[in-house]
Amino acid sequence: MFSSPKGLLHSTFNKRRVHIMDIQEIWNARPHTLSISEWGDRIEEHLEGERQNEAIFNLDPDDDREYNAIFVGGGAAGRFGSAYLKALGGRQLVIDRWPFLGGSCPHNACVPHHLFSDCAAELMLNREFFGRYWFSNLDGKIVNMKELVDLFRQGRNGPHAIMNFQSKEQLDMEYILNASARIIDNHTVEVCGQIFKAKNLILSMGSTANKLGIPGEELKGVFDYESFVEELDYEPGDTAVVVGGGKTSVIYGCFFNATGRKTTLVVRSTLLKLIPDSETRGYVIDRMKEQGMEILEGSNLIRVEDDGNGKAGAAIIQTPDGERRIETDFIFTGLGETPNSEEAAEILGLELSEKKEIIVNDKMQTNVPNVYAVGDMIGAPMEMFKARKSGCYTARHIMGEDISYVPRDWPDFVHSHYEISWFGLSEDEAREQYDNVVTIKMPPENENGLNIGLPASDRMMMFAMDKPALSGFQKLVIDGDTRKVLGAHHVGCGAKDAFQYLSRMVKAGLTVDDLGEMDELFLNPTHFIQLSRLRAGNKVLVDL
Amino acid sequence: MFSSPKGLLHSTFNKRRVHIMDIQEIWNARPHTLSISEWGDRIEEHLEGERQNEAIFNLDPDDDREYNAIFVGGGAAGRFGSAYLKALGGRQLVIDRWPFLGGSCPHNACVPHHLFSDCAAELMLNREFFGRYWFSNLDGKIVNMKELVDLFRQGRNGPHAIMNFQSKEQLDMEYILNASARIIDNHTVEVCGQIFKAKNLILSMGSTANKLGIPGEELKGVFDYESFVEELDYEPGDTAVVVGGGKTSVIYGCFFNATGRKTTLVVRSTLLKLIPDSETRGYVIDRMKEQGMEILEGSNLIRVEDDGNGKAGAAIIQTPDGERRIETDFIFTGLGETPNSEEAAEILGLELSEKKEIIVNDKMQTNVPNVYAVGDMIGAPMEMFKARKSGCYTARHIMGEDISYVPRDWPDFVHSHYEISWFGLSEDEAREQYDNVVTIKMPPENENGLNIGLPASDRMMMFAMDKPALSGFQKLVIDGDTRKVLGAHHVGCGAKDAFQYLSRMVKAGLTVDDLGEMDELFLNPTHFIQLSRLRAGNKVLVDL
Repeated sequence: MFSSPKGLLHSTFNKRRVHIMDIQEIWNARPHTLSISEWGDRIEEHLEGERQNEAIFNLDPDDDREYNAIFVGGGAAGRFGSAYLKALGGRQLVIDRWPFLGGSCPHNACVPHHLFSDCAAELMLNREFFGRYWFSNLDGKIVNMKELVDLFRQGRNGPHAIMNFQSKEQLDMEYILNASARIIDNHTVEVCGQIFKAKNLILSMGSTANKLGIPGEELKGVFDYESFVEELDYEPGDTAVVVGGGKTSVIYGCFFNATGRKTTLVVRSTLLKLIPDSETRGYVIDRMKEQGMEILEGSNLIRVEDDGNGKAGAAIIQTPDGERRIETDFIFTGLGETPNSEEAAEILGLELSEKKEIIVNDKMQTNVPNVYAVGDMIGAPMEMFKARKSGCYTARHIMGEDISYVPRDWPDFVHSHYEISWFGLSEDEAREQYDNVVTIKMPPENENGLNIGLPASDRMMMFAMDKPALSGFQKLVIDGDTRKVLGAHHVGCGAKDAFQYLSRMVKAGLTVDDLGEMDELFLNPTHFIQLSRLRAGNKVLVDL
Repeated sequence: MFSSPKGLLHSTFNKRRVHIMDIQEIWNARPHTLSISEWGDRIEEHLEGERQNEAIFNLDPDDDREYNAIFVGGGAAGRFGSAYLKALGGRQLVIDRWPFLGGSCPHNACVPHHLFSDCAAELMLNREFFGRYWFSNLDGKIVNMKELVDLFRQGRNGPHAIMNFQSKEQLDMEYILNASARIIDNHTVEVCGQIFKAKNLILSMGSTANKLGIPGEELKGVFDYESFVEELDYEPGDTAVVVGGGKTSVIYGCFFNATGRKTTLVVRSTLLKLIPDSETRGYVIDRMKEQGMEILEGSNLIRVEDDGNGKAGAAIIQTPDGERRIETDFIFTGLGETPNSEEAAEILGLELSEKKEIIVNDKMQTNVPNVYAVGDMIGAPMEMFKARKSGCYTARHIMGEDISYVPRDWPDFVHSHYEISWFGLSEDEAREQYDNVVTIKMPPENENGLNIGLPASDRMMMFAMDKPALSGFQKLVIDGDTRKVLGAHHVGCGAKDAFQYLSRMVKAGLTVDDLGEMDELFLNPTHFIQLSRLRAGNKVLVDL
């Protein structure tokens, strides 16, 4: 959350908030065509160097139309909405506190997640095969985590630079960066002392990681995904405590574990409830445990002890079996996010939910005329596709299209040491709704369980040959009567991208026969095509 | 190729051919329900152990119907065709010389390819980051290749065991394994002295790697994909010479290179002609060169020198610049395959093409009544999907369905150190056929070229952060008038599976607007959804 005496908005990161209020200088980017690497250097100067107090103005002096919309916040929702509105022939302005477009995702949220998950997958492979082939001997060794955070910090301006380049040179957007927007009313914002007016205001200021609200939380050594990337300035010891049972905590917890740290997940209710299929979920959690992770469900971190020097020294955890004390200098919280909505709500009189989501209709309209809200500000799912699409749909509505957007039935994923993807119904959900549910699984039901040499595919091949139980799990859930696919679930690697397209086909009525007709690229990470074909000849479908 | 004095068929691997002719004992598998691991042990005994002379009979004594079809060869085509015919209510028998179903693919062809490509990708990552993070120092070091071949040999029976288990217990097929079938006429085969009759005969005996036909080819140290896996019994030196410019040679050549060996590709015409998009192809080849591979196009291996001990000592290569001599004890050929068709053709009077493909119509019927041919026996594409589907379509035809199967417009892939996937038209092909071709690329056209931080996604994240030019390349080719996708091209990781589904959607008319409507799983290896969305607002599409 944030608060600001001057009414400045969407500047949730503490360090950044301080300096952003001092911004007075303006650099007119409009006449300059910077290359991507020049943008990279420039962003660096704005972030850490001599241009920290300089706003970037990229406004079109030749367009004297009133703005159709001002996007307050240039993350996924604001940037995509801007691009779309511009493409539809409108005039837009997008304003962001960062010196780049794209928002927190590439800076300290989902992009670093992917880097650390990549490291976790690589490290698991290395640890499973250490001392063999070319793998280094990591037995008992702890991999330096700060070096990997530094790798990200050093590289993250690359994608930032592309966003600025692309948005200006290819998408012809107008933007103001490295500056906060003060919302004045539903048509007006002030930036760097200048007033900007628009027919509509679109709020896309994102969300902020939730806090624990417990004693010791403010100590050095207690991180969330944002501060972990921004503030880690020491190498943590051999023990990590992670609070939360959802995406962020599992992604980071598995990474900490893979670096060789004793890692305990403290989960208030149930770990990874978000994975709908219980068998799939079980496969994921069993592998986490095998990798040495401790999981405390029904538990809460209740206090962080000071080590005497203002740093975390121990985590005190309430478990069903009583209180546990774990000595550690490293605690990570993944507790979900809350929309950065309060201040805008106060200024504009917006209606909020209990979770501080801005309440919108299917056109992303708030209760205040000409004010829209998009992305994380309207609540779950706080995912990239929804942020981007809500921005685009808002643009379409503003430009006169009759649209309706309510995200539903999207595919989803998370990383443990594996990539886990799913969409549609779990087996249990399907059995509740359908009389004749058929499943196709790999490994199939058999008395040797998982310890058999399939599935095998890219990035899982060494496991498949030597430690087959580690090579993944997958399941297709089918209505045996209509032969339609109801859901798909995958643990392994290389299926995530496919699930985007496959889920769309399933929504359009894909059957097991259609699947069997496709041309597989063998060894395909989803073995669904060939397994479906093996069953498609049957008039009465049965499990495989 | 093969020949056999006794008229035995489909026993192309020399070692195997010798013993298979001696088979006299029969084990009746029918009453036994073996677990998958029991099958694994059993296959081992048949392959290398005490049961080498014992055929496996799994025949149904309670079914007294005539066989609708006998499949001679139980690889991909024979196994899938059998499963389908059985599912349709027919009676089938499949016979294979190996003690397992599934054919050469999991034993010494496409499955080991994937293992070695996985190793190549891992080793490239390790070499690019050696001495940093957790990576071992491979500088100047050569990774033991035989150990990796042994890893495969040790693990390959796992997938074999599943095939036997699944085919018997789940698919209810009848089969005879570890025995050769002698074709007598178009309804009759003899196995282990017993006569089996069927309404139809389906030839699915696969193909054999082509030979060079040059002096020294018979020396120890000259391998193809099959003998590499079956016969490598020493650790090759620091230099590898690879002959061929297609899938097999590139897959193995990149692996040899990644192990740290000086690797020269000798290509008769042009390297990787199979990758249709020239820019994509250029990206792949440039990375191969950066990894230190030498590529000699317009060149031929003309002689292998004996080292004086019956082993390869040097490769003599005719290049456009004259003759080259490369000292090496390791030469690998990837020259394509020829169908194992000659002997069956002679016995049955089958019509063959110049390339020894059995000529079939769109129902896989040969010129001989009741004789069908499937899989590699009917020629290109010698791919898994075609083998399996041709088997299934044949089964459908035999069971009375009116079908037509001619493979066309399939997606395709190859591995270098990367995974490379494509379907549809290349940019150049599209420009020949359409007036208004639009492309969406990552990296986009820009003056810094590839050296920018996108694309980024799974398995490419470390590159994206530190060596962005190595993080991949992708391109979508679109008809700007109809807005339909014409082709897609991807170098990186994690897109291969998606290309199966995406290509099917493209055949059904997928537009850039449809793509923009999908729900991406960010960071998705194909950035196509979000990039399409950024353009979808434009009435007049332009490049991105």
